[in-house]
Amino acid sequence: MKYDQILLAHGGGGLLTNEIIRETFLPHFQNDLLGRLEDGAVLRIGAEKLCFTTDSYVVNPLFFPGGNIGSLAVHGTVNDLSMCGGVPLFLSAGFILEEGFPMADLEKIIQSMAEAAREAGVQIVTGDTKVVTRGAADGVFINTAGVGMIRYPGLISPASIKPGDVIILNGPIGDHGAAIVNKRENLGFEAEIVSDSAPLNGLVAAALAASAEIHAMRDCTRGGLGTILVEMAEQSGTIIEIDEAAIPVREPVRGFCEVLGFDPLFLANEGKMVLFCPEAESDKVLSAMKAERYGKDAAVIGRVQKTVDRGRLIMKSMIGGLREVTIPSGELLPRIC
Amino acid sequence: MKYDQILLAHGGGGLLTNEIIRETFLPHFQNDLLGRLEDGAVLRIGAEKLCFTTDSYVVNPLFFPGGNIGSLAVHGTVNDLSMCGGVPLFLSAGFILEEGFPMADLEKIIQSMAEAAREAGVQIVTGDTKVVTRGAADGVFINTAGVGMIRYPGLISPASIKPGDVIILNGPIGDHGAAIVNKRENLGFEAEIVSDSAPLNGLVAAALAASAEIHAMRDCTRGGLGTILVEMAEQSGTIIEIDEAAIPVREPVRGFCEVLGFDPLFLANEGKMVLFCPEAESDKVLSAMKAERYGKDAAVIGRVQKTVDRGRLIMKSMIGGLREVTIPSGELLPRIC
Repeated sequence: MKYDQILLAHGGGGLLTNEIIRETFLPHFQNDLLGRLEDGAVLRIGAEKLCFTTDSYVVNPLFFPGGNIGSLAVHGTVNDLSMCGGVPLFLSAGFILEEGFPMADLEKIIQSMAEAAREAGVQIVTGDTKVVTRGAADGVFINTAGVGMIRYPGLISPASIKPGDVIILNGPIGDHGAAIVNKRENLGFEAEIVSDSAPLNGLVAAALAASAEIHAMRDCTRGGLGTILVEMAEQSGTIIEIDEAAIPVREPVRGFCEVLGFDPLFLANEGKMVLFCPEAESDKVLSAMKAERYGKDAAVIGRVQKTVDRGRLIMKSMIGGLREVTIPSGELLPRIC
Repeated sequence: MKYDQILLAHGGGGLLTNEIIRETFLPHFQNDLLGRLEDGAVLRIGAEKLCFTTDSYVVNPLFFPGGNIGSLAVHGTVNDLSMCGGVPLFLSAGFILEEGFPMADLEKIIQSMAEAAREAGVQIVTGDTKVVTRGAADGVFINTAGVGMIRYPGLISPASIKPGDVIILNGPIGDHGAAIVNKRENLGFEAEIVSDSAPLNGLVAAALAASAEIHAMRDCTRGGLGTILVEMAEQSGTIIEIDEAAIPVREPVRGFCEVLGFDPLFLANEGKMVLFCPEAESDKVLSAMKAERYGKDAAVIGRVQKTVDRGRLIMKSMIGGLREVTIPSGELLPRIC
């Protein structure tokens, strides 16, 4: 189905986002690189293999426990580059500012971007600033694009996923989504719910150094762990089985979800990733990840069962049954990143 | 002076844009590449020399004579890459859409982007779509970042400008700014005022092929020819003298400016550029440019006089006098690109 107007759900990272990309963007922009619909494009330029990615950030509120739109804009793009197997090197920063936006808030945001860039070891090398009249934007929107270099010999892509691969998740899910909604809607959950926004390039470098057989990686941002695993199952044409009991969720986030009816599987993260590798490699990859700051809680959460015509995600629930996980069709959370 | 709020003029491309970049962004992001404040960053990655640039587009109205926000978003970034001496190869596209935006308009915009990309010979290889609630953005904003490859041996930069260089402009100025304002404000100028939005990479390739001594190039976008020549005079520490009579302005645009009190020197262009090269090279560069679709009206409009402590732009007026051209301090035109 095609809508005649843009709906919030077109930006939610779920089914409608998938639909607008496939039905509206791809028919016009069609090329092999974009057609893969991965987090970033892998490019050959001269002798080098690079990755290139972009994201616009429209998160509301701009400041939230664990970060702000500035740190998020750096982490998100650093992570997308990392997921292609790239070493993130250079970022661009494009600002759309609303007339009247407090300069002091802009300074805080820029300072957070600079700190996040330093932690991740990337440079912000080119930028742009636009200002629109009051009411024509909501405070500040930031776009970051990024360029990284790929040295890893393997093809890191859902296309490389194979039956027998195990799936490693680097820690508890749902923190970012819960932190944003709690703050935005003034839900007042007292328990400590803090965004997990973090640069994952160090963690990825450690994993790639530990094994030359990493097949695929994705960060579990908009749409959450559930959406990205469904997409990876479809892209790889495999049945992916995960074990609900093995997926860590922090207590305050679990409580938040129970009260409000959210499923942590579909809450956004900004510092979580999944990695696919053969079972024989998983011990060394897991230890390498656990030794890193953002991988302490890494765990195997499932495995790839078999190749099929229509890939799907199956979850063994806490109480033992198996069910297919599908992407919720309604609106996910808007302006989560 | 520093303001405590963002003003429209911070995005106008004039003095306040310069100020916010120097006083707010640069102190945090400081690095050599960004510090040059050129249209794009020139990067070494492995064996290759690349250029990387970004621009966000917030033009109002979205559709205007001669193009729309989609074609503009491709041309602007293709041109920024070209001005570094790069061959534009790959673009990213980040969309921020307002809930309720007509899907048919989005399709037209995407189609224009795709056509513009085809004409320029670049691929849109990675993208992102965000949706914000009604009222949180004005229709659609687009960010494009671009990556190009640099093969030209010389350093194309205001730092390479030398006394004796001539300045070549590729055609009449002010068309884009006049077209946008005429449409947005419903001024109803009947005469044909059409944006000059165009990809300049073919023109630049022809010029670079004609001479190995091109010193600097800039596209005359936001702020117009006047602002960018003042900036280039400052960056190169030279006196640049231009001849008003040699600068082409189409009759309808001249009439528009006379009636409304605009100076075409400070009206935006989206398909105009200046090129600096030694006088001895100028004949062959000029003929190469004139042979190209977007260079037919190319002309020498001035020359670089001498090196000084504080670079400035001098203009010989139509009636013969010499005056220093300075960037207007008030608000230029908002949302022109």
